[in-house]
Amino acid sequence: MTAFFTEEGSADAVNARMGKDVNPRLKEVMASLIKHLHAFAKDIHLTQDEWDIAIDFLTRTGQMCSGERQEFILLSDTLGFSMLVDAINNRRPVGATENTVFGPFHVIGAPEREMGANISLDGKGESCLFEGRVIDLHGEPVAGARIDVWSDNAEGFYDVQQPDIQPKWNNRGIFTTGADGKYRFAGIKPVSYPIPDDGPVGKMLGLLGRHPYRPAHMHFLVTASGFQKVVTHTFVGDDPYINSDTVFGVKETLVAPYEHVKGETAWRSYFDFVLTPVGTSVAR
Amino acid sequence: MTAFFTEEGSADAVNARMGKDVNPRLKEVMASLIKHLHAFAKDIHLTQDEWDIAIDFLTRTGQMCSGERQEFILLSDTLGFSMLVDAINNRRPVGATENTVFGPFHVIGAPEREMGANISLDGKGESCLFEGRVIDLHGEPVAGARIDVWSDNAEGFYDVQQPDIQPKWNNRGIFTTGADGKYRFAGIKPVSYPIPDDGPVGKMLGLLGRHPYRPAHMHFLVTASGFQKVVTHTFVGDDPYINSDTVFGVKETLVAPYEHVKGETAWRSYFDFVLTPVGTSVAR
Repeated sequence: MTAFFTEEGSADAVNARMGKDVNPRLKEVMASLIKHLHAFAKDIHLTQDEWDIAIDFLTRTGQMCSGERQEFILLSDTLGFSMLVDAINNRRPVGATENTVFGPFHVIGAPEREMGANISLDGKGESCLFEGRVIDLHGEPVAGARIDVWSDNAEGFYDVQQPDIQPKWNNRGIFTTGADGKYRFAGIKPVSYPIPDDGPVGKMLGLLGRHPYRPAHMHFLVTASGFQKVVTHTFVGDDPYINSDTVFGVKETLVAPYEHVKGETAWRSYFDFVLTPVGTSVAR
Repeated sequence: MTAFFTEEGSADAVNARMGKDVNPRLKEVMASLIKHLHAFAKDIHLTQDEWDIAIDFLTRTGQMCSGERQEFILLSDTLGFSMLVDAINNRRPVGATENTVFGPFHVIGAPEREMGANISLDGKGESCLFEGRVIDLHGEPVAGARIDVWSDNAEGFYDVQQPDIQPKWNNRGIFTTGADGKYRFAGIKPVSYPIPDDGPVGKMLGLLGRHPYRPAHMHFLVTASGFQKVVTHTFVGDDPYINSDTVFGVKETLVAPYEHVKGETAWRSYFDFVLTPVGTSVAR
């Protein structure tokens, strides 16, 4: 066997070069990456001009990144890669609440609020009551579950995007379930918004004939002792972008009822979070 | 068919999102990229921590890029991807001179020199005579072929890397063949050198148990009317890195004789460039 490069044996030539004392997992990941990257170039007969465009795109994507902006995460999100990694690592039994993307807008340390409290502090938007239960796979209530929630305001911005305009912790809060597993809080019906699209990823979306919008959703991070962490959203089913979330975050089971109601609140959204015990493994 | 994301149908969900009026070639390239990227994540069961590491690596790679440094090209080179793209786009008949990577050190506008001239201007290194012919696939001489040559100096640096130390156009020149197709110039026996390895790519090579060196080589860019452009090197066969070029540039047919000789010059390297007519296509 020659160590020299050939078109046919290109991936093998690269992978054969790895040393003997390399971390075995790194070796496995890199070997698979090389295999798939080379297969891509061969399948598509990638031209030199296309390679130039790709190098320039990746460079501009890296240079768009800052403390406040992560363009490579946007790229991963819009190519469905973030959702895929989340799905692979959070396989759950049928009936358990599914994960979706975490997103960049969670903030650690939101205020702990009394059950029933209102998280909307800016007085904007259509009022909505969120309620339901945290239960296990047998339908038994989970006590002491922490429900960390966050959403955009009625104009489509999270508080951290408008620190000079919105009250601190607007549309955020943490609730803890009692013995009945129930939760209940007031907020607003979330609205759809675009991901930041003034960089290379926004340009890419344009060239692919795609819009940059996410359908309206409320974020939930649900944790309870003995259960897997659930990072998810509930989606507003009649949102115009419900079938075309630009980051592919929508799953059928996460489209929650948002019903128009009469009374103190304009909307009501009921959703039960079904937790999976730690250590449960689901084969695919 | 639901438009929603599933682990099984992840690539299809992303590709189905592309618009109707998208450039057909862009659509084809992106669909293949998505298919291969998603297959990679699935094959390897990529973890969330590994995804974090990848995002950070790509970001640092982009931020290392500047007018003088292209870290994404180094990444492509060290993963054998640049050589693969070159190979796919420059398939030639058996017997024709093969391409290899262009590299970042070519400069347009090198001096046209008389046949036989010396390109080494700094007086360092072991003298070497380069000679041979430019011929076609039938062995007939090609007149009027331009041979643009460049190499590092005896310390392993190109003139453009040391503008304050080396004379301008050191180890560079352009020669044009006459009716006999012969070329001949004096220079030095090139030496091996490392690619820039103080960035993310150098760190990656270290983790993979790889060194950053390229075996000693002389660059040639050979052009002639009616023939395909040849971008190639000749390699010094007894170089310690000949079997482990960090950018996979070595091909068996490009390992050229560098013979020790007695006389005015210490070394002699004879190599014939065999050109392929424009329009020749070679199936794989």
